[in-house]
Amino acid sequence: MRKVGPILVINPNSSESVTEGLRVALSPMQFPGGPVIECVTIDEGPPGVVSQRHVDEAALRTADLIETRPDASAYVLACYSQPGLDLARSITTKPVYGIQDAGVLSALALADLFGVIAVAEGSIPRHMRNLRRLGVDGRLAGEVALEGAISVADSGHGEESYAALVKAGLKLRHMGAGAIVLGCAGMSGHRRRLEDELGIRVIDPTQAAVAMALGAVLT
Amino acid sequence: MRKVGPILVINPNSSESVTEGLRVALSPMQFPGGPVIECVTIDEGPPGVVSQRHVDEAALRTADLIETRPDASAYVLACYSQPGLDLARSITTKPVYGIQDAGVLSALALADLFGVIAVAEGSIPRHMRNLRRLGVDGRLAGEVALEGAISVADSGHGEESYAALVKAGLKLRHMGAGAIVLGCAGMSGHRRRLEDELGIRVIDPTQAAVAMALGAVLT
Amino acid sequence: MRKVGPILVINPNSSESVTEGLRVALSPMQFPGGPVIECVTIDEGPPGVVSQRHVDEAALRTADLIETRPDASAYVLACYSQPGLDLARSITTKPVYGIQDAGVLSALALADLFGVIAVAEGSIPRHMRNLRRLGVDGRLAGEVALEGAISVADSGHGEESYAALVKAGLKLRHMGAGAIVLGCAGMSGHRRRLEDELGIRVIDPTQAAVAMALGAVLT
Amino acid sequence: MRKVGPILVINPNSSESVTEGLRVALSPMQFPGGPVIECVTIDEGPPGVVSQRHVDEAALRTADLIETRPDASAYVLACYSQPGLDLARSITTKPVYGIQDAGVLSALALADLFGVIAVAEGSIPRHMRNLRRLGVDGRLAGEVALEGAISVADSGHGEESYAALVKAGLKLRHMGAGAIVLGCAGMSGHRRRLEDELGIRVIDPTQAAVAMALGAVLT
Amino acid sequence: MRKVGPILVINPNSSESVTEGLRVALSPMQFPGGPVIECVTIDEGPPGVVSQRHVDEAALRTADLIETRPDASAYVLACYSQPGLDLARSITTKPVYGIQDAGVLSALALADLFGVIAVAEGSIPRHMRNLRRLGVDGRLAGEVALEGAISVADSGHGEESYAALVKAGLKLRHMGAGAIVLGCAGMSGHRRRLEDELGIRVIDPTQAAVAMALGAVLT
Amino acid sequence: MRKVGPILVINPNSSESVTEGLRVALSPMQFPGGPVIECVTIDEGPPGVVSQRHVDEAALRTADLIETRPDASAYVLACYSQPGLDLARSITTKPVYGIQDAGVLSALALADLFGVIAVAEGSIPRHMRNLRRLGVDGRLAGEVALEGAISVADSGHGEESYAALVKAGLKLRHMGAGAIVLGCAGMSGHRRRLEDELGIRVIDPTQAAVAMALGAVLT
Repeated sequence: MRKVGPILVINPNSSESVTEGLRVALSPMQFPGGPVIECVTIDEGPPGVVSQRHVDEAALRTADLIETRPDASAYVLACYSQPGLDLARSITTKPVYGIQDAGVLSALALADLFGVIAVAEGSIPRHMRNLRRLGVDGRLAGEVALEGAISVADSGHGEESYAALVKAGLKLRHMGAGAIVLGCAGMSGHRRRLEDELGIRVIDPTQAAVAMALGAVLT
Repeated sequence: MRKVGPILVINPNSSESVTEGLRVALSPMQFPGGPVIECVTIDEGPPGVVSQRHVDEAALRTADLIETRPDASAYVLACYSQPGLDLARSITTKPVYGIQDAGVLSALALADLFGVIAVAEGSIPRHMRNLRRLGVDGRLAGEVALEGAISVADSGHGEESYAALVKAGLKLRHMGAGAIVLGCAGMSGHRRRLEDELGIRVIDPTQAAVAMALGAVLT
Repeated sequence: MRKVGPILVINPNSSESVTEGLRVALSPMQFPGGPVIECVTIDEGPPGVVSQRHVDEAALRTADLIETRPDASAYVLACYSQPGLDLARSITTKPVYGIQDAGVLSALALADLFGVIAVAEGSIPRHMRNLRRLGVDGRLAGEVALEGAISVADSGHGEESYAALVKAGLKLRHMGAGAIVLGCAGMSGHRRRLEDELGIRVIDPTQAAVAMALGAVLT
Repeated sequence: MRKVGPILVINPNSSESVTEGLRVALSPMQFPGGPVIECVTIDEGPPGVVSQRHVDEAALRTADLIETRPDASAYVLACYSQPGLDLARSITTKPVYGIQDAGVLSALALADLFGVIAVAEGSIPRHMRNLRRLGVDGRLAGEVALEGAISVADSGHGEESYAALVKAGLKLRHMGAGAIVLGCAGMSGHRRRLEDELGIRVIDPTQAAVAMALGAVLT
Repeated sequence: MRKVGPILVINPNSSESVTEGLRVALSPMQFPGGPVIECVTIDEGPPGVVSQRHVDEAALRTADLIETRPDASAYVLACYSQPGLDLARSITTKPVYGIQDAGVLSALALADLFGVIAVAEGSIPRHMRNLRRLGVDGRLAGEVALEGAISVADSGHGEESYAALVKAGLKLRHMGAGAIVLGCAGMSGHRRRLEDELGIRVIDPTQAAVAMALGAVLT
Repeated sequence: MRKVGPILVINPNSSESVTEGLRVALSPMQFPGGPVIECVTIDEGPPGVVSQRHVDEAALRTADLIETRPDASAYVLACYSQPGLDLARSITTKPVYGIQDAGVLSALALADLFGVIAVAEGSIPRHMRNLRRLGVDGRLAGEVALEGAISVADSGHGEESYAALVKAGLKLRHMGAGAIVLGCAGMSGHRRRLEDELGIRVIDPTQAAVAMALGAVLT
């Protein structure tokens, strides 16, 4: 096997706990002898990427980080808003994955129609713009936000957020979704349990992106 | 890590040499402790799946095989015509990947527009029907067949087929493709070299499908 | 008029009563001196084509039948799942019609938006995949399944199934459908009555396919 | 069989020779005991519908005619520009067919991609607008105009126009068309010969519309 | 500044009160030294363009008027059904704007998704056909008709129609519309007030078309 | 007339000469008593927005500027890459126009198909992504870059750039474009002359955006 640099998973917000959650979620893909999956926090980022300004500021910081890490073999932008995806691709020829794109496309590889669970109502229009740009909005069964004011940090832990995920998932399944994408980097803790309860595939977008990256760098 | 069954990669034609090629192509993703990637040949299949009858006959044989292997954790249909994809999904709730879908969707995770290299002109309309069904034909830069009469078995080896791949790849890059999908299970031998020569991502569809399967079964 | 062979209408299930229903439905198009409209049953087929396995098995049997009947001038696959449509077209240059395609396209010739009445909920995703492949999903007002457990055989007879058809038809008309396609080969017995009650065009897909076939072979 | 009124085929231009050509083209569908296929000329129409003003004027005249013929069971607007299609549908609940829609939709029932042969370059944008409205432009292989200054009246007769049709047809077949629609009401005289020469289906749009109308009124 | 002829705003119905409403609505764009914005009534038109026959008749009258006014620098068809748009463009090379197109396209310049308020349910299918032809139906959040029997003439005045507009606007905002198009030439009187109440942009289509025309003729 | 603040036209690059060109291009829309059209340069911007990094950096600077100018009644982002369009809309409820969107949508109000002239080949994929997001890529006749190494600053002046514009324009007209959008803020100097030479509408996107803004703020 040729030597491959780490897959750099970039959390553009400053919440180290979110990055730690990514590490846990990705640990099953960290094999002895396999590419290092390295999760990094952008310290100067906001605690969470919630506004469009956060997204646009994160784009530049992400690019700056990428430029300091030419040793990486692939980059994963671990935020559902994919800050700086175009910019990253303009400064490196290595594979760059945005987790929304990777999650949605992985869902389409498994089912005719997909659904998305958003943490908050307000991010749905931003997601829709990206689905239109991706050109796959025709296969969206629906996007549903978690009920209640659940933060990004809480969305992957505890019974309250789990109950909200199940409620959203049932709605999407009823709308015809054959697979569901978790519309945020922080929900992975509930993935397997939700999948078993709903009986349809549930996709954590960061895991999906890293799996794609493994395929790209290994072979 | 919970115990996961093998990822079953099904070659629906009877050419053991093609299956052996798949094993080589997928070996970098076979980690100690990781899921077994098991490549199987359908012995009663035709030497190559070239006609629509081959596709339809392979669908049933593939389903029969899947029913004998409930131990698998995921199934990959390693033929670009994806024989029996709908049927397989109707008889198992485990993830089933068709390599055309997986290859194309992986390309879309890396670039705006994708191109496809077909072994033969005659299969392009069949591919186009599937792209329309996938709903992503709007992002196809083009599909180009190899010039000369190159067989599936030869498409991944030797200078003649490599030269034909380069020629097709240059055309697709000129048409705007930012990533190229190899439109057959047998071309993987040339992937890395072609990618380096063209300077854009080249995707072997079976590798792409197995990478997605790893993501689905590991996490 | 040049001599034309029969229009072969193929019922891929083994229910002779369904075939007999087709004969009745098509009898108004059987003119003295006109092409023979011949309805045949595939005896070894299942009683009804309900699962994806039925569809895929029927594909091969249909092709086998077509090869024994080179005297026909056109072929109509009289099952809404259109088993073997691509295969049939790969083995004959004569016109081959699938009744879903023919029914839906005939509806589009009469109205902006169309609706479909399915016998069972479970077949709707299969139909949707085909509409996407056809590229006309953008004009679908909706597809609605009959309420109650009504079999294919019963769907064209009796007050219970008629009442269910009216209920579905009213929903579709409310959704904006200007024409309705009966989503199964067996509902033709209710067509005219339903059309009069709803006040919009109702299309039996087998009749629509045979009408198209008449146009192709006569002229 | 219930009594059905005539299928009224309306030629919106004043060229009786064109109407006579329609009668010849449709005669194979005129069966003893079957619905009368009646072709009528709008005497006050222009010799040919070539400009947009012709189209818009023809719309009103066609509607006036329809109102004087409530005895008809269906109406066919035998001009590829389909003057007054929406208007006709607003004044009668009987089936109204435009020949462009019927021809194109019949082509889609036979092949993945279709091509169109236009009499003149200038009408292509008008046709494209209607294909977009129909929502099937995604399946157009291409539209090609006859070379040379061939009139509507001449387009269905003589070796000069036949040679131009073959040239256009070969181009469309090369572009991937699996079926070809004659983009004018006057070319039917060459249909069968062209079909035999090209080896793919060639559709006369008026014949296609009348076949659909037969299906609608007979059953 | 080079001399520019008037922008001719054509009301195809005979209601001088509607024309007077247009004058009021457009007066803020009438600058000293700027192009004259001239609103004209087609006296022989119907009191309101409500049926398809009205639309088709208005097409010819509008073209006749345009031919008598070669001094104009641009033409605006001030009826949401845009009678004669294609015809007008075939007889003049000057800019011709239809207010539905201009209104909808202006909404898309301001928001991701747009909504439309129709005066009456019956005109919605006609509008939808045009949106499909425009190719922007994918961005329609919804179209909602005013409740109650409110005439075109009343739709821009009084509390009853205003209340109906607010109700429709709230529905559209809830459906995701980021901008709303008033689907008739006569509602402009309520525009500003409705915009302030809903908190999203409300577009009067005639004002939008004249603004575009100003841009085209001035620069 | 109610008092309206200035329409703020923001040039995100630091080239005061480009801003001066905007002033000249927009001066015909500056009426006595009308809204002030104020063109501002972002001094800390790059000399030209050519790379994706320039775009992303400009987004933040543009937003900062907008926040200092709450007196404006509308904002126009006078760069074809529309830096910060989503961000601007997230921080103000006033109308924000991006010139690519405004230019393209204005073209669609005038013609079925539009073409775009880009200054450089490299920006075409970026433009295409936006057209897909806009959802109007189906109406693009083509996008063609100026031949030769012509800078943004030179693209609106001199015979060399004019000749290149004519060449590109002729290609687009041949591809079916009925209107052409100048794909850069700096080409307006050639607009009228090019329009007269090509015989089809040519649209300067900044003029188009300001015209739309006038319509929004005046009425």
